[in-house]
Amino acid sequence: MVPRIGQEIRLKQYPKGVPTEDLFQHVKVDVPEPKVGELLIRNIWMSVDPYMRGRMRSPEETKSYIDSFQLNKPLDGACVGQIIESKNNEFTVGECVLGNFGWREYWLSNGKDILKINSKIAPIQSFLGVLGMTGLTAYVGLIEIGKLNEGKDTVFISAASGAVGSIACQIAKIKGCHVVGSVGSEEKVEWLLDEVKIDYAFNHKTVGENNISSELKKACPEGIDLYFDNVGGKHLEAAIDNMRTFGRVVLCGMISQYNVTSPSAGPSNLFLAITNRLRLQGFIVRDHYDMLNEFHSSMTKWISERKIKWKETIVEGLENAPKAFIGLFKGENFGKMLIKIGPEAQ
Amino acid sequence: MVPRIGQEIRLKQYPKGVPTEDLFQHVKVDVPEPKVGELLIRNIWMSVDPYMRGRMRSPEETKSYIDSFQLNKPLDGACVGQIIESKNNEFTVGECVLGNFGWREYWLSNGKDILKINSKIAPIQSFLGVLGMTGLTAYVGLIEIGKLNEGKDTVFISAASGAVGSIACQIAKIKGCHVVGSVGSEEKVEWLLDEVKIDYAFNHKTVGENNISSELKKACPEGIDLYFDNVGGKHLEAAIDNMRTFGRVVLCGMISQYNVTSPSAGPSNLFLAITNRLRLQGFIVRDHYDMLNEFHSSMTKWISERKIKWKETIVEGLENAPKAFIGLFKGENFGKMLIKIGPEAQ
Repeated sequence: MVPRIGQEIRLKQYPKGVPTEDLFQHVKVDVPEPKVGELLIRNIWMSVDPYMRGRMRSPEETKSYIDSFQLNKPLDGACVGQIIESKNNEFTVGECVLGNFGWREYWLSNGKDILKINSKIAPIQSFLGVLGMTGLTAYVGLIEIGKLNEGKDTVFISAASGAVGSIACQIAKIKGCHVVGSVGSEEKVEWLLDEVKIDYAFNHKTVGENNISSELKKACPEGIDLYFDNVGGKHLEAAIDNMRTFGRVVLCGMISQYNVTSPSAGPSNLFLAITNRLRLQGFIVRDHYDMLNEFHSSMTKWISERKIKWKETIVEGLENAPKAFIGLFKGENFGKMLIKIGPEAQ
Repeated sequence: MVPRIGQEIRLKQYPKGVPTEDLFQHVKVDVPEPKVGELLIRNIWMSVDPYMRGRMRSPEETKSYIDSFQLNKPLDGACVGQIIESKNNEFTVGECVLGNFGWREYWLSNGKDILKINSKIAPIQSFLGVLGMTGLTAYVGLIEIGKLNEGKDTVFISAASGAVGSIACQIAKIKGCHVVGSVGSEEKVEWLLDEVKIDYAFNHKTVGENNISSELKKACPEGIDLYFDNVGGKHLEAAIDNMRTFGRVVLCGMISQYNVTSPSAGPSNLFLAITNRLRLQGFIVRDHYDMLNEFHSSMTKWISERKIKWKETIVEGLENAPKAFIGLFKGENFGKMLIKIGPEAQ
């Protein structure tokens, strides 16, 4: 039998600053055969996420909550694939599964590191976004870390049309809150106002980074109860300026900071955390997998009630994954950035 | 009857930067007579505290949790006085009370804004420090906000020989924690190590502000679970560098920031709050008066068991209160800074 040939993307060198395409390598490799108990999976979709930048540092450079990517090995991350060979009785060829071996075409599983996907709920790639870690991140951030007060809170969300932000906006609206979002283009502002129907949205690029605070004062004259931070930097400082007493700042991501090569100044107004008794709290979704069932049943219900909208920015071809990943830091995604690796077999 | 003459200290102008003595005015005033139901109190002790700097701003300049001081009126703050005239059956001449009308010699009370002091527990001025708001601040910060884990946590405390810091050090030691303190002189280091017996103390002035992080790495090789921040600035940044996963940063004071005239950069490493899932939380002691009884019974017990030591820096004479207050920002206090306004009548 002729061995199957697959593709994978490797990291050749850890980036300094904004990653560039030449640091990645697209290679062809032999695909191993599954042994007894194993499955061979062909990826259909993979996710690129800002957090992956944190893994593109040498193990010495930073202690992170998750291991650094190894150089000259395939990268990894969330993916949706289809079983094409099975030597495991619990899985059948043709089933779609969620796994963690993105950035490659084929991979082997022992069946323990994958979840079967029910494509009747939503298209299979949704399990990388609204029904996956992205949706869970929004849910955990608002409910568990932010202790959202239903029907009461004024909520500010940055990167509000991003994968996490756009879901957070909608959960907060479903929970009856006043929602304000910041984005980086007029098109995104319109989508949030016209489609998602949040209460106020602004384009931080036209507002200017030094005016975010006064824009928030307009949007939330009585202050912000919960800030869901995906950006850091000037957004965080401006939000702190406008927090109400006992406000909560959920530190979910700091995309403005991931590529800085020298330390950039933090918020100069942190003393307001004392006078206004603020709580700032960082979190990582994988500490909260105990909320997965609760999240899943809520989100499935909301989707069936057509209460949740989501956007996808789809890039075709595994070889374009590095470019798509780099695009995240330029705001090239509108909603979830996804790579279509191959077709789903029917 | 010849009217009684008293002294008081007024603020003539809101300071810019570090306050100077010429902004204060020492004046003589007629003392009013108590009406039925009232008491006349002569102050014996008063407290100067860093938080008062926050009240020396114009009401327009900053919205603070507490009103600005009014210009050309006597300042106020915690004091211990003795009743010298009583037209209220619940109070007797000679009793000592705790009140909120410092910065003056005499004042009237209706009996509702004062607490009687039991001088058998400790000297009366202790009710401004270890047994007063200062002690309660340390207690609330560690127990309620910091969720101190008895017998487990590594605790770092800045301004560790200050009024709040020195009590926080000792509560954390009583609770079986590993305690590290930062102070601004060798004498204070010695006191912490030899008398208070914390586990590690360093002089941040000799260490240098850019080396606090590496000093903490030496002091807490496995990281900090709880940082009790009285200082802000470089101390906060250095602590964040060294926090363990799920660490807590209690934002109690930021004495390094109170006199800055232009915004000074915040911690540049706040992204670590995400990767290490940190919680940073500010608090104000007056939100936690419900813990006063619990605190009081614990602290009274610890004092009777000689488990708590405290230092006082005593400045004689009401007229020297401004100088003493200004000295707080130069680290001139060792423990609680107190003004002795007059003698206690026996």
